[in-house]
Amino acid sequence: MLEVKTPKEVLRLIEKEFKPLGRTETVPLAQAPGRVLAEAITAKEYVPDFDRSTVDGYACRAADTFGCSDAIPAILSVAGQVLMGESADFALSRGSCVYVPTGGAIPRGADCAVMIEYTEDFGDGTVGIMRPGAPGMNLIFRGDDVFPGKEILSAGRLLTAQDIGALAAVGKTSVPVACRVKVGVISTGDELVPPGETPGPGQVRDVNSPLLTAMLTDFGAEAVNYGIAADDEELLRRKMQTAAQECDTVILSGGSSVGVKDAACRIIESMGELLLHGIAIKPGKPTIMGKTGNKPLIGLPGHPVAACFAAQLFVLPLLGRLMGRKQEDFTVTAELTESLGANHGREQINACRLLREGGKLLASPIRSKSGLITQLAGADGFFIISRDCEGLPKGAQVQVYLY
Amino acid sequence: MLEVKTPKEVLRLIEKEFKPLGRTETVPLAQAPGRVLAEAITAKEYVPDFDRSTVDGYACRAADTFGCSDAIPAILSVAGQVLMGESADFALSRGSCVYVPTGGAIPRGADCAVMIEYTEDFGDGTVGIMRPGAPGMNLIFRGDDVFPGKEILSAGRLLTAQDIGALAAVGKTSVPVACRVKVGVISTGDELVPPGETPGPGQVRDVNSPLLTAMLTDFGAEAVNYGIAADDEELLRRKMQTAAQECDTVILSGGSSVGVKDAACRIIESMGELLLHGIAIKPGKPTIMGKTGNKPLIGLPGHPVAACFAAQLFVLPLLGRLMGRKQEDFTVTAELTESLGANHGREQINACRLLREGGKLLASPIRSKSGLITQLAGADGFFIISRDCEGLPKGAQVQVYLY
Repeated sequence: MLEVKTPKEVLRLIEKEFKPLGRTETVPLAQAPGRVLAEAITAKEYVPDFDRSTVDGYACRAADTFGCSDAIPAILSVAGQVLMGESADFALSRGSCVYVPTGGAIPRGADCAVMIEYTEDFGDGTVGIMRPGAPGMNLIFRGDDVFPGKEILSAGRLLTAQDIGALAAVGKTSVPVACRVKVGVISTGDELVPPGETPGPGQVRDVNSPLLTAMLTDFGAEAVNYGIAADDEELLRRKMQTAAQECDTVILSGGSSVGVKDAACRIIESMGELLLHGIAIKPGKPTIMGKTGNKPLIGLPGHPVAACFAAQLFVLPLLGRLMGRKQEDFTVTAELTESLGANHGREQINACRLLREGGKLLASPIRSKSGLITQLAGADGFFIISRDCEGLPKGAQVQVYLY
Repeated sequence: MLEVKTPKEVLRLIEKEFKPLGRTETVPLAQAPGRVLAEAITAKEYVPDFDRSTVDGYACRAADTFGCSDAIPAILSVAGQVLMGESADFALSRGSCVYVPTGGAIPRGADCAVMIEYTEDFGDGTVGIMRPGAPGMNLIFRGDDVFPGKEILSAGRLLTAQDIGALAAVGKTSVPVACRVKVGVISTGDELVPPGETPGPGQVRDVNSPLLTAMLTDFGAEAVNYGIAADDEELLRRKMQTAAQECDTVILSGGSSVGVKDAACRIIESMGELLLHGIAIKPGKPTIMGKTGNKPLIGLPGHPVAACFAAQLFVLPLLGRLMGRKQEDFTVTAELTESLGANHGREQINACRLLREGGKLLASPIRSKSGLITQLAGADGFFIISRDCEGLPKGAQVQVYLY
């Protein structure tokens, strides 16, 4: 008999039971943001590839400027200028300088750049330097940023737009990423009709299919919709088996009646192994998880809010595990706008809106009696009240998971 | 002569000078996440559309159970059961009850549901109720969640997966969203070569085009790449004019030499009006902004890190303004892992990595001398040190803008 597990135990179970799929593909940079990097990226070259000035000014030898001041400038002869995009393949002789723009190359012999603001062009081929330089001042040297062999990005990173910039800088035009995990989505329930239809008496629209599809897509997975299955064990079994054959993982949601919950467990057991029967969270408790081979088979609650919380807390980390993602999502700290009771012996999850007031970020909990729309629409995220906490006072800090 | 503006002044300027474009399109729900809702969505129906039980148990009249206990259960006759997806179009007589599954419809006359755990089936057509009900207990009434006329989502909201669920619940299968803003991206600089090429002496790869393209796409805009323009005012002017004709806004980045910076200002002035000449941030100061009609023309610094910061702080809010987005991005609070100096008279921006240690979120600032890769690759975001602050001690709390 499987016991109800705590959220931490479930996350450990996911780590233990499932391995990254290891399937990778190479995509052009433009398609890489939001994907999981499959291999560490190591620089093969120097960035910058030459010594550069970080200011508009004169590259010179610092020693030639020591002791200079506004009153007694160091007089240097101007040996020319370096244009952007050109090399500075010459040596600077003592007592001379060259004009360099920001980012421009520095000739051999120069060991600093003096900002143009601290110089005066005498118009006779010499400039006066009014502030002494120091070796290295206003320069960035070859390889200061990156050198061959330096790891730029580690495997498992979720690529950002900024990473794309860095990859472009070292000449990477494509990168190896984890293939999108293919997730079969099935809704069950005799009461469900597709969202486009008007529900008859006692019926409701299937919210979980579009909700989960959007969450999965957003996470970088590929959702495959298997539609609504009636509460019939054999039908459900066949749908689950088909989905498991065609996908990397299957999510079944719903089954509001006790019989269907048991049926989902029996089906998962018959296809492989049941790993988890209930999680100590409210809402979201009737979440089950099993596997056939390395393929996770998940049963989520039928109530969309419960399914949403359970999906974000457990299904997305599981998909991250399958794609080899090695990064967590960050929570936002906010202050509760009102006190909130809790006394359930299991973690209580509350949707909230975030608002900024006087520089403070506030979390306004959304109260609703099993509300569906109100807990989802317009919410900015949710926070968790721990299982041993009897409630939070107004002003308490909560960690908000963003939608 | 335009003065350097503070970041707050720039954001106010954006509000004042630019109006939402007001172009909308209707997209199916599956394509709606990440788009900006163009109109408020109001419910046209009740959710739920019937009174429902929130537990598996017996629907009954609370009054029939008052005073019952484990020792003296209230005995009710079972008038049948309501199946999922079926209506309960009958009246419950006094002294009787019906079995209802979670989410099932409640017959007229019933005013509570008692969890099955607190009942005993005597097998003779009666059940014993061991805990008294109270009117409304374990029920959700018609329209409790949403009723006709209730605003579900407000205009300007960036749609989340959860919003999609709520929209599906009220039968919306498509929604009106703001059209993607079309942004022309131009890089300038004689030193630039496309990312796929190997830079010669004094040359560097064009990082800003792929970086900005990725940032814009991520934000829900459409980036149109106009390639690299050499430092030639006439060429640049023609490219800017073409881009302004074909796009809703143009971003020019680069122009490291003083001459090109001036050229960008002259071009923007000749096309319309220069609104802004420099922002008091470091890095990112040489950011300029102007307009031709309601079309923003932006000049970003050439250094990719400066361009990235300026884009996130000013260009993205500007695009949000054009798309009518009424939402801010939330920052994450973290503790500095080391002290950090600052004394610039302008806001200093620092990239950082985030790490969790003992439940605390830590921000580790990335120190680099004008570093490009190191400030972008692998960073989780950045934080800002205010202009009047001389530095932050280790352990100080910073607000991190996530990449």
